[in-house]
Order: sequence, then structure tokens, then C-alpha cells
Amino acid sequence: MATLQQRFGRVIRQRREDAGLSQEKLAELAGLHRTYISLLERGKRMPSIEVVRVLASSLKTTMTSIIRELEGT
Amino acid sequence: MATLQQRFGRVIRQRREDAGLSQEKLAELAGLHRTYISLLERGKRMPSIEVVRVLASSLKTTMTSIIRELEGT
Repeated sequence: MATLQQRFGRVIRQRREDAGLSQEKLAELAGLHRTYISLLERGKRMPSIEVVRVLASSLKTTMTSIIRELEGT
Repeated sequence: MATLQQRFGRVIRQRREDAGLSQEKLAELAGLHRTYISLLERGKRMPSIEVVRVLASSLKTTMTSIIRELEGT
């Protein structure tokens, strides 16, 4: 059973790949460090809602869309 | 202009009151400290998605519902 942060990481990785973005590019767009993106995607960090907000904006989606997918997994 | 965490606090306070719960009771249900609930409601803390998860569960709603309302404010 995957933890919440592991599931979050999978959702973000899939959406980043679907958007054709590298971790470096997403990090740049979101104003986050590439290492932090990598940790998030591997389920090693628990994001705040502010991180969800900047990731959603950078991925041209909404927080609601990301959380809905997370909750459905 | 309210910050994201201020808006989150307002959403949680309103939903807690709508549920007829005291801060103490919500804290007990969510396994959080009452002081932390108070800080969250006053927009003084930035919650993780795990905190959103336990609050949603305690308020008998979903993370998606809370985030949708947050994003609409």
C-alpha cells in the first residue's frame, strides 16, 4: 500500500512526463530545486499545499485536479 | 489579498463550525494538537497534504472538496 506522499509523487511524475517537461524544467517553472522535485516524485517528501499550488500552476492545471487524482489512486 | 494559508484557515474554520465541532474536538478526531488547529485557522501555518487528509477525514469530507473550495476563494 503506497503512502500518500508516494502516491502524490507518482501523480506529479506522470503529469510532468505528460507535459513533456524534465525535472529541471518543472523545477525552474515552479521556483523549486530540481533535487526537491526528484525527492517529491520518489515519495520522499510531504508537500505543503503551497507546493501543490506552484506545481499545479507550472503544469497548467489546478490544485483540485491534482488532489482529485491523488484521492482516486 | 489573503494568502493561501489564510484562505485555507478560513475554509477549515467554516467547515468545522458547520460540523458543530470545537477546535478541541476536531483536534482530537484528527490526531492533531488544538493549538495547531488554532494556528491553521488563523492562517499561521502552512499545512501539508497529510494534514489536509486527516482534516478532511475528520470533517467527513474529501481532500478534493476542501481544495476545490480553497481554490474557489
